[in-house]
Amino acid sequence: MTDQYRPASSRVTVKRGADRAVYDRAEVHAILEAGHIAHVGVETDNGPIVLPMAYGVSRSETGDEVLIHGSVANAMLRAGRDLDVCVTVTIVDGLVVARTPFHNSMNYRSVVVRGTATAITDADDKVAALQIINDHIAPIWDTARAPSESDLNRTLVLALPLAEASAKVRSSDPFDEDIDLDGPHWAGVVPLTTTWGAPTNGADLRSARPVPSAVAALAGLDAHA
Amino acid sequence: MTDQYRPASSRVTVKRGADRAVYDRAEVHAILEAGHIAHVGVETDNGPIVLPMAYGVSRSETGDEVLIHGSVANAMLRAGRDLDVCVTVTIVDGLVVARTPFHNSMNYRSVVVRGTATAITDADDKVAALQIINDHIAPIWDTARAPSESDLNRTLVLALPLAEASAKVRSSDPFDEDIDLDGPHWAGVVPLTTTWGAPTNGADLRSARPVPSAVAALAGLDAHA
Repeated sequence: MTDQYRPASSRVTVKRGADRAVYDRAEVHAILEAGHIAHVGVETDNGPIVLPMAYGVSRSETGDEVLIHGSVANAMLRAGRDLDVCVTVTIVDGLVVARTPFHNSMNYRSVVVRGTATAITDADDKVAALQIINDHIAPIWDTARAPSESDLNRTLVLALPLAEASAKVRSSDPFDEDIDLDGPHWAGVVPLTTTWGAPTNGADLRSARPVPSAVAALAGLDAHA
Repeated sequence: MTDQYRPASSRVTVKRGADRAVYDRAEVHAILEAGHIAHVGVETDNGPIVLPMAYGVSRSETGDEVLIHGSVANAMLRAGRDLDVCVTVTIVDGLVVARTPFHNSMNYRSVVVRGTATAITDADDKVAALQIINDHIAPIWDTARAPSESDLNRTLVLALPLAEASAKVRSSDPFDEDIDLDGPHWAGVVPLTTTWGAPTNGADLRSARPVPSAVAALAGLDAHA
């Protein structure tokens, strides 16, 4: 594996704002780790559709992958076993207020992955992939009841190679025109922070159950760090 | 205008998790107001692509619209003046931890809008649309220097009718199997909160400039309320 995704494909080369483009493998992984949901786009007979989905990232010597899952009844996923998809993960870090609207912006981190997603059919691979997706935000798999055969049969897991990926990062002040610098207008950034709150017990807990340590550990954390 | 988006189209009818589907006009607007960015999907010769974009929502007697913008150099938008798009806005509100991974979930609010986006060419309409996009998070348009002719010429604004829209909302405890209720496992929700921090001055501020009140007012607010 190389440290750069750049050579993989021209179709994930960032065209607009190329100065914000990042193809570094570690940076792409860091953003995917910090995100919570992916927006998954596919083409349908009725035009494009984009749906929010849980995801995870697997790493292996044979190639990293983005993993997504859904019920086998999910028409979007069922439409094709080999599905041309775009998986985009975005974290918004702040509002960038410039001296004129043309330069207003957001600080953000985003990753775009394009390629062909294929269903994972091997039972062991499927369980491993589901654990990665479930543990993406916090390691909650091992503290729960293992999935049943029926649970697994009702779940479709797709793997998308992380070969065609690019990232964009903006994390700076606004860039204003020179003519505006002596003007009367303020410029700066309003940061955005996402934090986990204290876990709340489900109403159907019949008696006290300890909150799993991995769940309790989230409270107060910057959720996109 | 009706209070429901449901009749508009069968292709935005929520198929999976139909119990979480919402077509109420007020609810769709509330989610679009609370979101910060849209994930915009289009079809290209190279397959689907999904990119994060700023957006706004216009309301009028002739029909509400989602507004997005980009440089005229944005290949994605330039590809078609009448562009078949899907605009999806998602807010994640919490991690739902069930007694078994099959029932893990997220609490979230999302809106999916599908349709044909068209460029706004009338100069006054374009300025009005840009103001709506710029003011989506906070009203920062009026405290800045107005856009120049050149700024406007370099910006493409697209309007997508809010006619084919649906929302999904999940905001509850996990739904576990009856057989798991007496088991040893915890179940509950970890809430996620996004807040604005204190604005930071741009490093190129040459002398003190007051922070616009609309910007200062964000600090400490729940950013997705």
